[in-house]
This record gives sequence, structure tokens and C-alpha cells, in this order.
Amino acid sequence: MSQPVILATDLEGVLVPEIWIAVAERSGIEQLRLTTRDVPDYDELMRGRMALLRAHGLTLADIQRVIGTIDPLPGAAEALARLREVTQVIILSDTFYEFAMPLMAKLGWPTLFCHTLEVDGDGMIAGYRLRLPDSKTAAVHALRDIRFRVLAVGDSYNDTGMLAAADAGALFEPPPNVIADFPQFPVLRSYDDLLAFVERERQ
Amino acid sequence: MSQPVILATDLEGVLVPEIWIAVAERSGIEQLRLTTRDVPDYDELMRGRMALLRAHGLTLADIQRVIGTIDPLPGAAEALARLREVTQVIILSDTFYEFAMPLMAKLGWPTLFCHTLEVDGDGMIAGYRLRLPDSKTAAVHALRDIRFRVLAVGDSYNDTGMLAAADAGALFEPPPNVIADFPQFPVLRSYDDLLAFVERERQ
Repeated sequence: MSQPVILATDLEGVLVPEIWIAVAERSGIEQLRLTTRDVPDYDELMRGRMALLRAHGLTLADIQRVIGTIDPLPGAAEALARLREVTQVIILSDTFYEFAMPLMAKLGWPTLFCHTLEVDGDGMIAGYRLRLPDSKTAAVHALRDIRFRVLAVGDSYNDTGMLAAADAGALFEPPPNVIADFPQFPVLRSYDDLLAFVERERQ
Repeated sequence: MSQPVILATDLEGVLVPEIWIAVAERSGIEQLRLTTRDVPDYDELMRGRMALLRAHGLTLADIQRVIGTIDPLPGAAEALARLREVTQVIILSDTFYEFAMPLMAKLGWPTLFCHTLEVDGDGMIAGYRLRLPDSKTAAVHALRDIRFRVLAVGDSYNDTGMLAAADAGALFEPPPNVIADFPQFPVLRSYDDLLAFVERERQ
């Protein structure tokens, strides 16, 4: 290897379940299942989620307890440990640190680039702060600018920008519509596939 | 916290001993103790080191076995584990991945940005590739550009660029001449000081 490699990987759908869906299931608040497929405007979606949590009297601490019961996807922690022995790994996600930390503990504290929440005096989620627009793609550009070879994997539409910006990108267990719309990216079906992709693309 | 924080920390002198000095001690090759204080031209210094290793018949694998006997500084692994629970940590170093990996294993595989070696057909170190000039400072700028609040700590002259580029910088157990030349940076004397610095500078 002469150029050092960073694997930039999505979190939800690759290493852990979709967090809002898991919270919806465990809290019984079905409307928390809505995603940008249902409400395309992200700010409108997030304001709806915060209003729902407030209406049910759920604080950030309550949500964190719920998230604490979520486990990484089967095999994810072991795969990530193996990946970290052969390359640098940074998780690029549009979730929030306040949500992700219990899951990071279960994954051995990998480095995570994501966003932050704002909490009011009652402990309710009162706002959110996106670090910057299209933060995953921006992070890939930043890492390439400091001369890393960047490999990127993700499962959905909001990952395709970073996959295209990377030196090599691949889809991990994507839904059929993402495969159809982005035939240029190889499709990985397992963590063994992901490890093989990294081995192949290290140069 | 509304702006997410990354702690950018130097490796040698902060978390692990100086690697070349430890290799000199363990290999008995005293001239490997020379640093840029003795040979200011880094390329000349590195060519001298590679020639010495070749003259003694030491391959990269031999050096890696030696480095495998080095431990992190006392308390470093525990301090790093505590830091990673409260903030993101990226180690910025001018060492080489091929040297650092045994130490990363002992530190729980934190993310490391450094450089790479070239090895010839006999397994000898034949060259090195610096990712880019002043790579620590460049990494701090890149992380600030993607809207992280960057805290930086290091112990020596080659860290002062990144300390100045960071949102907040501090010296960790520096030699007296560095303190004298850079009085603008606070001085941390222990890992407890480092943890307190991070707590204070998170906003």
C-alpha cells in the first residue's frame, strides 16, 4: 500500500438498524416510521418527529434509553473490528451524536461524523443542527483533499453522493430501486463482500 | 453541545513513546536515536535510518516485531477510552501505518492519520511516502472546513502548526524549550488535565 485508505461507511442499514424505525417499534408511536420517502422535506419531517415526541412526553433521555436496547446488525461489530485492523474507518451518518452513542459503545467506539441535537430545559428535543449540507459528500472530499484514498459504502439514495465522490464506492444491501437507479455501483450482499471490496480497492 | 467536537491528538510523546528511540534501545543501534534536532533535513534523516536498518539486515517485519514489544505510555489506553466516550478522537501523526499498527491494537484501534512506507522485494524499508506536507495542520483545516470544532494536543515543535490551526490547542508534557517558544498554548501535565481541557473546550 502506498496511498493510505479510509473506508467511509454509512451507519444505519449498514452497521445498525434504522434508528427512527426502531424507536417507532419500541415506543409504539407508529408515525415515527415516516421517512423522507413519505415527507420529502427533511426539516418538516424532523419538526413532525419532535412534535410527536413532545406530545407523548418523551425526553431525549427516554429516547436514549430506547436506543440503548437496539443492537448492531448481526455480525456488524465483528466485521467492523476486522475492517479496523486493515484500514482506517470513519462512519459518515446523518443521525445525531445524542442518538448514536449507545450504538457506538456496542461497536467499539469507531470514529463517527454526524450531527447534533438541541435540548430544552425540560429535556425535550427542541431542535437539531446539521453540521453542513450533504455532509457525507463533503467529508469524502475533505479526506481526499488530505490525500487519502477514500472507499465509500452505503445503502440508500442519501449515500450516492459520497459513493460518487469517493475513489471507489459500493452499495451495501440496497433496496431494488436504489440498484436500478445507480447501476454504476457494485452491490455488496454481506460483510464478507465488504471486506473483499476493501481488500480489492486498497492499492 | 451544538457544534460537534473532534480531538486531534499527536501520538508519540502523548500516547506512546517515541518509536525510533524505542527501536534504537531495543535493537541496540544507537544511531537510530537521531532526530530532526540532530539532522534537520527530514529526508536525509530518513535515508540514514533506512541505510542503517539495511546495514544491520533488519527488515520491516523485524522492526514490527520490535515495535510489538512497545507499550503505550502508562494510563494512555485508559485515558483514550474515556476521551472516546465524550468526543470524537483522531490521532494525527508523522509516523507510518506499518509501524503504528501494533500500538493501535493496544489502544483499541483509534482512527489514525499518518504516512506509509515502501518495502522492497527483500522486505527492507526502501522508501517512505508522506501523505502531504505539514499533514497535521492540513488535517485540522480539513476537519474545520466540514464544521467540526477541533481541539488539538501535541508535545513538540511539529505540533504547533496544528495547535495554532485548531479552535483550541494545548501542549501535553512538552519539553521546556517548546513551552518557552510557544507561551500562547496552555500546558497539560497529565491525562486528567487532558480530559479537563476537552470538557472545558467542548461547547
